[in-house]
Amino acid sequence: MSRFINKKFQELEAYTPGEQPTDMKYIKLNTNESPFPPSQSVLKAISAEEVSKLNLYPDPTGNSLKDALAGLYGVERKNVFISNGSDDILNFFFMAFCNDDEHPVKFPSISYGFYKVYAELYGVKYKTVDLANDFSINIEDYFGNDANVVIANPNAPTGIALSRADVEEIDKANPDRVVLIDEAYVDFGAESSVALTKKYDNLLVVCTYSKSRSMAGARLGFAIGNEGLIADLEKIKYSTNPYNINRLTMLAGIEAIKDNEYYVNNCKTVAENREYTQKKLVELGFEVTPSKANFIFAKSERIDGEELYLKLKARGILVRHFTANAICQYNRITVGTREQMDKLLDVTADILNEKENSK
Amino acid sequence: MSRFINKKFQELEAYTPGEQPTDMKYIKLNTNESPFPPSQSVLKAISAEEVSKLNLYPDPTGNSLKDALAGLYGVERKNVFISNGSDDILNFFFMAFCNDDEHPVKFPSISYGFYKVYAELYGVKYKTVDLANDFSINIEDYFGNDANVVIANPNAPTGIALSRADVEEIDKANPDRVVLIDEAYVDFGAESSVALTKKYDNLLVVCTYSKSRSMAGARLGFAIGNEGLIADLEKIKYSTNPYNINRLTMLAGIEAIKDNEYYVNNCKTVAENREYTQKKLVELGFEVTPSKANFIFAKSERIDGEELYLKLKARGILVRHFTANAICQYNRITVGTREQMDKLLDVTADILNEKENSK
Repeated sequence: MSRFINKKFQELEAYTPGEQPTDMKYIKLNTNESPFPPSQSVLKAISAEEVSKLNLYPDPTGNSLKDALAGLYGVERKNVFISNGSDDILNFFFMAFCNDDEHPVKFPSISYGFYKVYAELYGVKYKTVDLANDFSINIEDYFGNDANVVIANPNAPTGIALSRADVEEIDKANPDRVVLIDEAYVDFGAESSVALTKKYDNLLVVCTYSKSRSMAGARLGFAIGNEGLIADLEKIKYSTNPYNINRLTMLAGIEAIKDNEYYVNNCKTVAENREYTQKKLVELGFEVTPSKANFIFAKSERIDGEELYLKLKARGILVRHFTANAICQYNRITVGTREQMDKLLDVTADILNEKENSK
Repeated sequence: MSRFINKKFQELEAYTPGEQPTDMKYIKLNTNESPFPPSQSVLKAISAEEVSKLNLYPDPTGNSLKDALAGLYGVERKNVFISNGSDDILNFFFMAFCNDDEHPVKFPSISYGFYKVYAELYGVKYKTVDLANDFSINIEDYFGNDANVVIANPNAPTGIALSRADVEEIDKANPDRVVLIDEAYVDFGAESSVALTKKYDNLLVVCTYSKSRSMAGARLGFAIGNEGLIADLEKIKYSTNPYNINRLTMLAGIEAIKDNEYYVNNCKTVAENREYTQKKLVELGFEVTPSKANFIFAKSERIDGEELYLKLKARGILVRHFTANAICQYNRITVGTREQMDKLLDVTADILNEKENSK
């Protein structure tokens, strides 16, 4: 830290991303990436010819990409915001709509860890709402019209989803607040609330290409909402970094939509692999949450959560372990290919056997 | 605008980027892009194999790229910050080091228009300092240790540069403030102040791949400074959008450094084309500033600035015109290839002749 940083940031605790180790080749099940490459059209679109045009700025409006997304989701261009990953959009949300005493925010106490970082970064008054014992969200906790609401749906790291009807109840109960639904993981089996954005001017749905669309490395997120909310986000983007999406990413984003079926099929495969792996984990004595996401949240009385994480890592499998008390017995395991899942199950069974045989 | 945006942003005026028209093919001399494609190594690095790995996140530390930049600039990894374009870094600077009453900032009244936007975005107290009549910066105006300082060197849109010795004087005169030198255009003939960052803990030099390195479309900026300043910027990055650089961009950034000679030669060509074009413009009756950048700043009593801009545009040549009173007679013309410059000169001569013959 330098002696020049503003006092208010001195105590700020930044977000800790999942490990991206470069020391050896792991089976990476720790950052919820897709195990599948981008679709053929994406691979073709990033051609030598397009790369040779990187000397030119991207189109800052991104209208071609917005139109493609609007077509897919049945909304209009003015209802679509695009940015450099969905974290970028969450950041803009906290900046634009929270960020002072009159605009507090609430979100679940167990959820994406970044919400708290944004709230603290901007000095926003925030309240974390505890989950039920089974990690489900009680929607009535978010009624009251007294704060903006941020909910990941499905929630992370539990994978538990609200129905669209539940989201609508929350939204209707906060008519003078913005309700942000973070749908990073929605494509793996939950209900999207995008359709509700036509009915309510206070609902913002945030989505990403990083999970179901196999483009975590390309950095592309989008949000869908009422044109007023979208215009506000555009204003913040044009006041911070208007050219924030790579030219090639913009092209890839458009092409991916043309190959939508490929991604839908991949999501089905991931959902099947999730159900398969959960069943096998339960057979090994694990408890799992009813995840609708591309990850599994699992614990077992046979082994401490951190111990399992470390032993898997030592054998070349990375999963995500969180140290917060309420969830420290769990690991969040990204759902990969069937082959990767079988390897995970085999290694886990070995670890449990070795542990119990050495007693 | 929605009814939900914070009051403090209601009056905010966002930055207006240069036109990126899609209606027809222009000779684009309006956003200071390089007329040359990225180097061969960059073209090769963005291979089909790498594109197929876009399902994976980039390395958020970016250490490989930092090491490559550190090698080129003779500093250490801890002295290098990388981000999604240099605008992103300017944004972080205003957020981290200004952003309250105790940290005002000053910058030239005629300079990159975004500085003012950032200051207003974060509610920073700022002072704009007038240039001399010849658009030069009087360095003593920035002495006083009473505010952070932001100076583009060379300045935009004038292209006029300070020497490294001048920058050192400013830096020494502000020991308790951060001095940011925006070197977006330094590679075309001005002196970089990077070497001074080893001597002073309050100097931050911001650079970009968008101009001299032909990668405006890839989005990559970097800053060099004392490790404390760099650590502060990292903290802000990890509190907003840690994975903010595209995987392919990261690779391209490393490869571009290996081809440094290619880019140095391109800069020489641009500087030669600048001198050539300026000389010809003067022969046509223009006044030009002594630009050390990849653009020319020119006006003529033979034609109004806006009129020339519009007439060039009608004939397929885009230049940048600013409406502020002090500079509205000028146009900022990006230096392109010799062929593009000859076309610009021919069309300009035609426009002037037609105007004078029609009287």
